Amino acid sequence: MALIVQKYGGTSVASVERIQAVAEKIKTAVNAGNQLVVSVSAMSGETNRMTELAQEIQAAPSLREMDMLLATGEQVTIALLSMALHQLDCDAISYLGSQVRIVTDSEHGKARIKSIDDYRIRQSLEAGKVVIVAGFQGVDEDGHITTLGRGGSDTTAVALAAALQADECQIYTDVDGVYTTDPRIEPNARKMKSVSYEEMLEMASLGSKVLQIRSVEFASKYKVPLRVLSSLIEHPVGTLITSEENIMEQAIISGIAHNKDEAKLSLIGVPDKPGIAFKILKNISDANIEVDMIVQSVSAREGLTNFAFTVHRTDFINAQNILQKVCDELAAKGVQTDDKVVKVSLVGIGMRSHAGIASQMFEVLHNEGINIQMISTSEIKISVVIDEKYLELAVRSLHSAFDLDKE
Amino acid sequence: MALIVQKYGGTSVASVERIQAVAEKIKTAVNAGNQLVVSVSAMSGETNRMTELAQEIQAAPSLREMDMLLATGEQVTIALLSMALHQLDCDAISYLGSQVRIVTDSEHGKARIKSIDDYRIRQSLEAGKVVIVAGFQGVDEDGHITTLGRGGSDTTAVALAAALQADECQIYTDVDGVYTTDPRIEPNARKMKSVSYEEMLEMASLGSKVLQIRSVEFASKYKVPLRVLSSLIEHPVGTLITSEENIMEQAIISGIAHNKDEAKLSLIGVPDKPGIAFKILKNISDANIEVDMIVQSVSAREGLTNFAFTVHRTDFINAQNILQKVCDELAAKGVQTDDKVVKVSLVGIGMRSHAGIASQMFEVLHNEGINIQMISTSEIKISVVIDEKYLELAVRSLHSAFDLDKE
Repeated sequence: MALIVQKYGGTSVASVERIQAVAEKIKTAVNAGNQLVVSVSAMSGETNRMTELAQEIQAAPSLREMDMLLATGEQVTIALLSMALHQLDCDAISYLGSQVRIVTDSEHGKARIKSIDDYRIRQSLEAGKVVIVAGFQGVDEDGHITTLGRGGSDTTAVALAAALQADECQIYTDVDGVYTTDPRIEPNARKMKSVSYEEMLEMASLGSKVLQIRSVEFASKYKVPLRVLSSLIEHPVGTLITSEENIMEQAIISGIAHNKDEAKLSLIGVPDKPGIAFKILKNISDANIEVDMIVQSVSAREGLTNFAFTVHRTDFINAQNILQKVCDELAAKGVQTDDKVVKVSLVGIGMRSHAGIASQMFEVLHNEGINIQMISTSEIKISVVIDEKYLELAVRSLHSAFDLDKE
Repeated sequence: MALIVQKYGGTSVASVERIQAVAEKIKTAVNAGNQLVVSVSAMSGETNRMTELAQEIQAAPSLREMDMLLATGEQVTIALLSMALHQLDCDAISYLGSQVRIVTDSEHGKARIKSIDDYRIRQSLEAGKVVIVAGFQGVDEDGHITTLGRGGSDTTAVALAAALQADECQIYTDVDGVYTTDPRIEPNARKMKSVSYEEMLEMASLGSKVLQIRSVEFASKYKVPLRVLSSLIEHPVGTLITSEENIMEQAIISGIAHNKDEAKLSLIGVPDKPGIAFKILKNISDANIEVDMIVQSVSAREGLTNFAFTVHRTDFINAQNILQKVCDELAAKGVQTDDKVVKVSLVGIGMRSHAGIASQMFEVLHNEGINIQMISTSEIKISVVIDEKYLELAVRSLHSAFDLDKE
């Protein structure tokens, strides 16, 4: 008998019919002899509806009261899902975050889980019930209701699995697993059977939208086997995200991520003195703009350097204005910007033990006539910034060159 | 500085605009130097919407899960009302029943309040906040969410007022007070300045729909001054429901109640033996039918008796069938039924010390040619059952005969 935590997102519970379909899935897992704990989101559309009600009253409502308001979304879903299970003669009980003591800090709207008291859940499991827990919400130490922010229901599920030492945490979503790359770009993209936490983390932060970074971090920290699978198909297998040592045959390269949200900014001909990087980036970060890649390079003229970085495209205009001021202050030669760039990244734990991956990547791109504008590397990934018109070509040629279409 | 508990029902908070209007009212009371605790219902329509969702899943959903579902209604209102107060620069904080520890028994759907922990509310009041509490809901000793059933929000308000020893509990509704009788029947009906708990209890149980019996009982038990007033007018005064000794000039008769929901059934010519009443009513109560008035009278023929009672009209057919069986078993002469009757009641504490009220009432009805079918009396009320076609005539002639249109 395995203890499984399942999570169903807003689209999976968007209507009574879908809630009934989820109940069928749960019952199948119970009939197979498993103990089930299920975390659900608000029915899709509900959160928007409530946010609009609040906005009619206040442009910037109190975060505490927003949490009070939004937490009702999951409360509705858990009650309805519990009823749908009863209707299938499957014993079930619903709990709020506050009832199973999902204790968080007091950062309303983006609270972090501090602890979960598993006593009540275990008691209900032992009584033969399916336990339905409201995702996305918790309670702080003073009893105020909190919400976990974006992707919070995934985090709830992983945290429950960690607290209960569950055998597996299954995240049901609208994709059927993690692919070697975006199948909309490369039709030969292959669904991975398994991938390591580290690789998944890199992929999530490099633009893969399958899972929120926080839930993967949480799973990695507590070694929770995490499976992503589709709620729309009959017998999904999905992709298992687990510890490196549990993956039998580790490919050198696991996947190719891409990110179309980046824009590049460069300051050209900056006098090369200590503190230059700080001076440039201080102004950018003061404006609450997050910087992704940073490259400082030697300029053609002696004593001068070039400084380039990327930001999210929504911050592009703002960053451009700030950089122009910095340019004047530092008496640099000029500002160059480009919001027609993309980032393409190769991710794989195998890089640690295989030299030459980077040069192989650069060769592939060179052979296709793709110019590399920036490079950044970590232990298990290599990212390059290229002209956005080469995105598909780069992804496909790398996918093929590193044999990602083959098992 | 007075401590006031206010309660606003579902129609008073049915939209964002109405919630904003309620916030204005609260702010006015705060600016007048009062401390405010406010209990609210779900926005009208919400409870039905959720009940329908549940009904799509199960005809008879688990009462525990229904409470989980329905409790979200007030949670939405308290968050929005709190925001509306913030928008008026009025500090406010919302609390769920579970957060201010409105502890109830575990009878889901019709739980009874056992205790309220006033610590958190007092703390927030002392911090200068308006405290908004979700009505209708509580939590049992094991932490399960419960609801109080019909009129539950009124009960929450009265219970809060009792726990906090508030100076007054104000129930805002869509009528502007308690009238000497139904103004739709008697245009000269007069709004009472005050009425005693006992009279209000009689009126509520005799058909007046202004307040639920439970909340009046609660107020009476804990001596909470209770005021009914309109949320639709500018400076409402309403009617104060209080202890008899606080009412300076007590009228002999306070009001006339009526009830159109009754139906009369009679068993004619029953052998007059001990246990007859029990045998007849046992079958009725076994079918979960509530009996209101009961009259046993001597039959014209010796050794026989007639037995009559009234039930709610929705139970009429059912009661008729049961009584026919009882008739056969007891070898009675026959069953007579009539669902075209009404009950008209005179209520007044003054009856205790004034003899002759009953005969005066009967005389008035006699003068109008109205035949009395049944009579039942208590210390402070006289009820008669009459043909429904005389309802208006009876109410108006009694209202005038007992000078209820005069201050």
